[in-house]
Formats: sequence, structure tokens, C-alpha cells
Amino acid sequence: MEHKSSMANGGKPIRCRAAVCQKAGEALVMEEILVAPPMAYEVRIRIICTSLCHTDVKYWKMKDPPGIVPRILGHEAVGEVESVGDQVSEVKQGDIVIPTFLAECGECRDCTSNKSNICSEHPYKLSQGMPRCGTSRFTDLSGEVLHHFMFVSSFSEYTVVDVTHLIKLDPILISPDKACLLGCGVSTGVGAAWRTANLEKGSTVAIFGLGTVGLAVAQGARICGAERIIGIDINPDKLTMAKKCGVTEFVNSRSIGDKSVSQVIIEMTDGGADYCFECVGLSSLIKEAFACCRKGRGKTILFGVEDSVSVLGLKSIDVISQGKTVIGCIYGGLKPKSDIPTLIQWYLDKKLQLDLFISHEVGFEEINKAFNLLSEGQCLRCVIWMTK
Amino acid sequence: MEHKSSMANGGKPIRCRAAVCQKAGEALVMEEILVAPPMAYEVRIRIICTSLCHTDVKYWKMKDPPGIVPRILGHEAVGEVESVGDQVSEVKQGDIVIPTFLAECGECRDCTSNKSNICSEHPYKLSQGMPRCGTSRFTDLSGEVLHHFMFVSSFSEYTVVDVTHLIKLDPILISPDKACLLGCGVSTGVGAAWRTANLEKGSTVAIFGLGTVGLAVAQGARICGAERIIGIDINPDKLTMAKKCGVTEFVNSRSIGDKSVSQVIIEMTDGGADYCFECVGLSSLIKEAFACCRKGRGKTILFGVEDSVSVLGLKSIDVISQGKTVIGCIYGGLKPKSDIPTLIQWYLDKKLQLDLFISHEVGFEEINKAFNLLSEGQCLRCVIWMTK
Repeated sequence: MEHKSSMANGGKPIRCRAAVCQKAGEALVMEEILVAPPMAYEVRIRIICTSLCHTDVKYWKMKDPPGIVPRILGHEAVGEVESVGDQVSEVKQGDIVIPTFLAECGECRDCTSNKSNICSEHPYKLSQGMPRCGTSRFTDLSGEVLHHFMFVSSFSEYTVVDVTHLIKLDPILISPDKACLLGCGVSTGVGAAWRTANLEKGSTVAIFGLGTVGLAVAQGARICGAERIIGIDINPDKLTMAKKCGVTEFVNSRSIGDKSVSQVIIEMTDGGADYCFECVGLSSLIKEAFACCRKGRGKTILFGVEDSVSVLGLKSIDVISQGKTVIGCIYGGLKPKSDIPTLIQWYLDKKLQLDLFISHEVGFEEINKAFNLLSEGQCLRCVIWMTK
Repeated sequence: MEHKSSMANGGKPIRCRAAVCQKAGEALVMEEILVAPPMAYEVRIRIICTSLCHTDVKYWKMKDPPGIVPRILGHEAVGEVESVGDQVSEVKQGDIVIPTFLAECGECRDCTSNKSNICSEHPYKLSQGMPRCGTSRFTDLSGEVLHHFMFVSSFSEYTVVDVTHLIKLDPILISPDKACLLGCGVSTGVGAAWRTANLEKGSTVAIFGLGTVGLAVAQGARICGAERIIGIDINPDKLTMAKKCGVTEFVNSRSIGDKSVSQVIIEMTDGGADYCFECVGLSSLIKEAFACCRKGRGKTILFGVEDSVSVLGLKSIDVISQGKTVIGCIYGGLKPKSDIPTLIQWYLDKKLQLDLFISHEVGFEEINKAFNLLSEGQCLRCVIWMTK
């Protein structure tokens, strides 16, 4: 009976340590917490390592809803299955998995289509609990509920994740520090070039912002055969890393005099780039990225924006008369269970260089150091090891 | 010497009649004008028939720039080549042609790519003259310049068009009244489904506005194998025609009570349409069309907007987190010379029913009647015959 044997803790709560966001923007607090056993379709996971993404930082700082405390952040991770709930047969105790904020049921109209990566049975939504019921599996020792984050909450030694939000890994192929990167940022960038833009050989690409997502876009664009990959950043120190990721030309947007970035890119490319990726997440840069795009074919790919109210400030007439496209990108258009194995294969084939993204590593006790590093722009990905 | 023999009027101006817009929004004035001979790369054409598009009406009413008077409007037409300028070998005297507002040089980086329909040698621009030099070929009898419109100016017995803006036709295959429709509106709609959306078999489509462009989108969607084609209009009288064009379901947006159109479409389709076409040209409807689109794959296709200043009022966060795409459509993504023959083949195969769009026909003298008909919403296309 696989089901029974996998209930390592007999379906009881596990007491463990978690780094809890108790107050927006303040250092996470290392606490003893209780992690409830997995319910039907759920899996309890011992986190091996986790990395820090800007979305964690954004929600950590967020004072107003959907920001909420107390909460366990973290959504890029690798873990080992500790136990599974009813109805779970896809993974078993001891399996190594990547939990993902996006689900893939594999059966709905969208999961069975090659046009979408948003599962319609379990669509992504802002939530503070589990995807099916909205309740939490975390409590502190006084019984107070601790909220979930992005259906992952990996800043805890143990977490509970829905089985539709898990990718099973072969741990012989890829180490956990590399694999955890695939949970969000790196996959988003690589996928954006591959799946969202579907960019073809010989394309010209402009990338605004050479952080993790931007560098991953560059690697994805290189894998897809882009001919020119133009990186745009305010920091010339990023050039070395950018070149390693496939960037062929660099524009320092603080050293172009009176010209706008779009003027520079349009001149460099004789009319604009085929694909522009806005990886900084600023409304003002969306306009500039759009302006960089070639008439009649240019696609502007968006990953994020600074708030939940700003509108696309593009003139409708420009979108229409210039025959341009604007695409919103979530998780790089990737289906987690179906597409991440391809990224792992690219890693094994040495096409995708995951190691470049790991700029720092810390132990779980030092998790607040990772927040400082990422906030200060010193860091691509800081891997946080739960036991080291 | 083909070149010399084609100079029927010995390279002299032709005196003929034109319907001139002398004052914005006032009846066109039938006048005697002079049409200069074609210069290099240009072709002088005797217009056989022309039809009236909403863009003509829009510019006719426009008091401020880029509106300008005196001007010869008209950009959907068929004509016979009267003479050609130097460097023109693609057509000769007597050939039957459709002049088009969009160019196709056939040689530039964009014309040779399958990703774009905006020729980079001759990109579309607002102009009041010929595409290469900006000057006019029209004068009145006192010598005053009359301005061009959209590189076509078909409301004249003769006009001059750049050779890159001409499609040569086999007049045995298609009569001029059907062929002239392919100059703008019908091609734009059919092309939007085929080229811009590239919609696949089994798709669900929502079309806002069942005028010529919307009905042409429906026909294009049917040709591409769409399964559900939902038409949305305020006028239930359009249902009969809509069904003939392939619309499978009709939503009267004035009879849905407190619900929004997007709520209705999302319920009908269990999550939204794969493709939404906003064919009315109103900013407010762009938001509604976007909201109708299915998360993770929905594409909103835009054709026009009421002014040149309004911005896409879509929240950036919605575009991103819902993984949606917004596409600006010019001439349905069609390359004039390369793609119109396919539309003509579809017409010959009885897949594309051009006859349905011809709701009215008038003689050239009655051209102002066509403006009234189209402005009053009584009309899809009114074909204006130059000699009848």
C-alpha cells in the first residue's frame, strides 16, 4: 500500500523551523511552527534549498493587501516528498520535486492545448492559502494561522503543496541548487524567448534589464538561434555576465546622451528589434520597449509592473498603425510539468547555464542576508540551504 | 518598346472629373481636375469603380490635421492602367489593378519575411502626396494643388499610384465591384483572422461590431475553421447577414441586462474566447474585448480607434498575470501583392462571399449619397461606378 507507507509521520503535524514575515519590510523571524499533514491531492515536502526572487521581496515589503502577515514567503525551491495525501499517486515519499506557483492538471482544455500555460482547473490567483480550499497548513505554536505564498511557501523546513503544483525530478541529473532556480525567474526568462515569443532563428532581440530574468531571456534567445541579442542596463558591470549569457551588444542607457533608448536601438537595428523584453517591471520602460519594436512584426513581452493599477500607456493608434503586438508573460509561457524537463535537458546539454545565476549561497539562518543582497542589486540568485 | 507604347496620353496631364473634399464634413464637389502623368515608379489609372470605407468618412469629417483640404479621398478601388512612368515593368497599359494604401516592394527585409506586412522601403505613413516624394499629381483648373489620400485617391476618374501600391488582377476571374472591396475593409477583416490572429481550427472567436470588417472577420474565421464565432452588436437586424458570414451565436449588447458583454461571453465560452476582434474602433470596447479573452492564450485584435491620442486603458498587471496578447492589425496582416491572390482564390472557391458586402451601388455623380448611407449605418459597402 504505497499510500500508507508514504505517511512517514503518520499524518501528524510536523514541528519545524520557518522564516516568517511578521511585519512588512522587516527582517523575517525564525520560528518554530507546525505544518499540518497533507490533505487530499496535497504533498508535504521537506525543503532542501530555496532561492530568493524579486516577487518575494515585493510581497515582503507590501503593507497593503494582497500583502498580508504573518506569512511564509518563498516560491523557488527543491524538496523531498515527506508524505502525500489521499488521491496522490504522481509522487511518493522520497521523490525530489520542484514546487511551482503555476499548476498543470494535464487534463483541462488549457493543459491539453499548446496555446496556453494557465490551467483552467487550477488557474493562478492571488491567495493566502492552498489552491483548492484557500486554507492554511501552517500554524505557530500558539495556534495562530500563518499564511501561504504563491502556493509554495518554501521559507520553511517543511511545506505543503498541491500535487498539480509539483514537478518531479531525477536528482541524479541536476543538483538542487540548480533545480530550484527553475521554479520561477530563470524559467520565466528562458520560456519567454522560447514559448511566449516563440522567437525564430536569426531574430533581433532587445532586453531591458539584465537581472536574472533578463539574462535568462538572453540564454533562451541564444538557444532559439537569435542573431543579435542587445542588452540594455544602467550598470556596465553587468556586461561580462551578459556576454556569458549570450548578449551580443550592450547599451548603457545612462551613456547615450540626449537620445532615448528606443532611438539608439532603432538606429542599431535599422528599424527596431523583432522582440523586446521589458524585464525591469517599470511602466515607463514598457513604452520605451514598445517603441524599440520593429513596425509590422515587433512584439513587446512584459513580465511585471511596479503596481497593480498602472495601465499600458501605449497609444492605441500606434499599436494598430504600426502593427505591433504586446504580450503578457506568466512563467515564460511554460507548462511546469511538461516544459521544465526540456529546460533540464538544455542544462544537461550545456546550452542553458544555470550555474551563472547562483551568485550567492547562505544557510537558512542567514535568510535575511539574502533579502539585503537582492534588494541592493548585488545578487542574481542567492541559494538558501535549509541544512548546511 | 513597352514603355513608350503604354504612354497613351503621351505623358500629358489628363483632364477628368473628381469628387473633391473642399471642406471637412461637407458634400464632395464634382470638379474638373488635371491629373499629371506618372513619374518614375508610378502608374496612372482610370478608376472603374470604388467603394466607400469608414476611414474615408473619418478623414472627410476631420477638421484638424492630418485632415486637410482640398483633397481627393477614396482608397478601395479597381482601375485600368492608362500609362506608366519610367522603371515600371510590373504592369502595362490595359492591365486591371487594385491600388492599395499599403505597399509591397517584395525585396526589403520585411517583404521577404513572413513575419511582417509593413514594407520597410515604403512604410505606411500619413501623407497628402505620393509615397516617394510627397508631392501631388492633382491640380484644379486654376492650378491649385489637390491633396492625395492614403496613396490611392480613387474618387477621381483618374489617379496616380506608386507601382509598389498596386495588385494586378485577372479581370476574367473577378468583377471590379467585388475586387474593389479587397482594397481595404474586407481584406482587413479576413486577413485579421487568417494572418494577424493566425487562428486555428476549433477556435472560439468573439467579434465586436458586425459591420464590414466584423463580418469579414467572421468569414475569415470560418475559412480558418473556427468552431464558435460569436458576433456582438447593438443592432439585432444584423443577425441574418451575420449568419451568412459564419457567425454561429449572436449577442445583442443592449439586451443583456446588468451584465457586461465580457461576463456574457465568459459564461458562454466557460472562460473566454480564444480571439476577440474589436471592430468598432472604440477605446471603451477595447477593454471589454480584452476582458472577453481567455486567460493564458487570449488574443485581442485591434483595428482602429476613435482618435490619435487615447491610450490602451488595460491594466498592465492584467495583461501580464492573465498571459494575454494585444495585437494591432493593419490591413489584416496581409501583404497586398502576395496575399490578395489567396483571397481571390477563396472567392472563386466560394469560401469567401464578397457579394454579401455590396449593399448599395451608385453612379459617380451620386457619391455623396454613399457618404450618407455609410454614415447612417444603412450600408456595408456602397460601390461607386465611375461610368454607368
